[in-house]
Amino acid sequence: MELRELGEFGLIERIRRAAGRRPAGAVALGIGDDAAVLRPRTGEDIVASTDAMVEGVHFRFGNESARSVGRRALVANLSDLAAMGARPLGFLWALAAPPRLDVRVVDGLLRGLLDEAELHGCPLVGGNCSAAREVSLTLTVLGAVKRGCALTRRGARAGDGIYVTGVLGAAALDRSRAERGGRVRFVAEPRLAAGRALARMRGVGACIDVSDGLDADLAQLFGGRPLRPHLDVERLPVVRGFRAACARLGLDPEALARGGGEDYELLFTLRPGALSEAALSRRLAVSVTCIGHVAAGRAPRRKAAGWSHFRA
Amino acid sequence: MELRELGEFGLIERIRRAAGRRPAGAVALGIGDDAAVLRPRTGEDIVASTDAMVEGVHFRFGNESARSVGRRALVANLSDLAAMGARPLGFLWALAAPPRLDVRVVDGLLRGLLDEAELHGCPLVGGNCSAAREVSLTLTVLGAVKRGCALTRRGARAGDGIYVTGVLGAAALDRSRAERGGRVRFVAEPRLAAGRALARMRGVGACIDVSDGLDADLAQLFGGRPLRPHLDVERLPVVRGFRAACARLGLDPEALARGGGEDYELLFTLRPGALSEAALSRRLAVSVTCIGHVAAGRAPRRKAAGWSHFRA
Repeated sequence: MELRELGEFGLIERIRRAAGRRPAGAVALGIGDDAAVLRPRTGEDIVASTDAMVEGVHFRFGNESARSVGRRALVANLSDLAAMGARPLGFLWALAAPPRLDVRVVDGLLRGLLDEAELHGCPLVGGNCSAAREVSLTLTVLGAVKRGCALTRRGARAGDGIYVTGVLGAAALDRSRAERGGRVRFVAEPRLAAGRALARMRGVGACIDVSDGLDADLAQLFGGRPLRPHLDVERLPVVRGFRAACARLGLDPEALARGGGEDYELLFTLRPGALSEAALSRRLAVSVTCIGHVAAGRAPRRKAAGWSHFRA
Repeated sequence: MELRELGEFGLIERIRRAAGRRPAGAVALGIGDDAAVLRPRTGEDIVASTDAMVEGVHFRFGNESARSVGRRALVANLSDLAAMGARPLGFLWALAAPPRLDVRVVDGLLRGLLDEAELHGCPLVGGNCSAAREVSLTLTVLGAVKRGCALTRRGARAGDGIYVTGVLGAAALDRSRAERGGRVRFVAEPRLAAGRALARMRGVGACIDVSDGLDADLAQLFGGRPLRPHLDVERLPVVRGFRAACARLGLDPEALARGGGEDYELLFTLRPGALSEAALSRRLAVSVTCIGHVAAGRAPRRKAAGWSHFRA
């Protein structure tokens, strides 16, 4: 069946049924009204972020299942909440799609979104459907964090250690395989628990999630300030077998780890004398690696690798 | 200059400068971090809604300025807050656009968004930029309303009066003129103050904003319930000169007022014995017309006129 046979209201009803109609958690009013109503706890700030996945730009149905596209879309958004130290309240899904699209594609996207939503306690609470020439998913996630305690990109100081959760380059390696005739299989883990733990810790400087690539996101933390990252490149954490896999594909492992993007690991700085890597890893419930420190002085002007839209 | 010359980060910086960087009102952290941080007052619920405007579906640059597109996009979203009785906190803007788009088009969209934002105290707090084949704006507005006091589509009862603010059909008339070689000029007024007043009043049943058209939105209030609207069609409020203008264009004024859509007036029900039209108009600071009442019993099955996506 094509979307045009189902119609907008048929589609909304289909999504509402799949998402479940009962208010739960922070959701006072979900899908089906003019807007969703969410109920934060007393003394919480609201954290909001929006992110789009566009067919032909961020994904192709030729080498990725609709479910995977849906999962990756929500992960990218949840990762922004993680980087702020927020807990998820719910998300909105704006879908644009051609009227002739097979409804099974929408079902796949929806399944991916809802599977990931359930994993992280972030219910679908509303959205929008529109006709368009290409498929795109624009998600908005809403979260909550103790008032005044959101992590931000500002706040790094000279002398801070630079840390990253998990491993880098896995998403880029997966994409490289997919470009060579494979399929996109890697779905990152948004570091929500780690972000919340960081928001409760003392001595945290700046925090960002690695979405555009390590170098590009380091530039976000230090760009325009008299600070520069001093990286210990040998320490960049990668998944077991990463270098061998890169060698087989003729890829530079360091370039992939530093410029690949879509890692969705947390990149943060800590005041010197803070916890050991092992203690930090326990506290954040994920492996944490110190990859360098913040030095005083501006970085030499250099185009960071990493993803930027609109560039030729 | 084309977008691809400016680049994603250049564009974000351009938007950030235009939007202003200083936190204000409910905005604890605006554009430029992983997410925006908003601070509701104690005892408030958060209201969130997302809506998209897609080139070739909702607008054409051939007959409408970019500024008007931007203004209409934010009005459509703010109207959803109005229908919930919420005050605006801020909005997010996800822009998708072809890399070859002239930056002046983006500047026009931005000016329209920011002009309308300033009128209604709803600052731009974040967003996303992505390449795409066609231009689209997906906005998410966030608002706040006293806990448990959000207006909803549910809550109408048999015997309630049916009321509408302002006039109907003006947007549809404007679009009809534009389709005949004119330009889109009409920008509706989101009824934020009226919505907030309704949220504080006793005796309000259901509330919705007229976006798809009066008949379609009445169906949203009563569909699937043993209730139906009994309209006094003679009383439908239209702008002065509306019937003559329709006659000149060969249009049916009743069809336009009932099925046109994008009116962004509030449509609501009130328990019988509530205020007079004049007293209501004063309370809501906008003209209010009683256009009928809610009757018991299901409406006969009939396809309501009004906009639905994906239909051929």
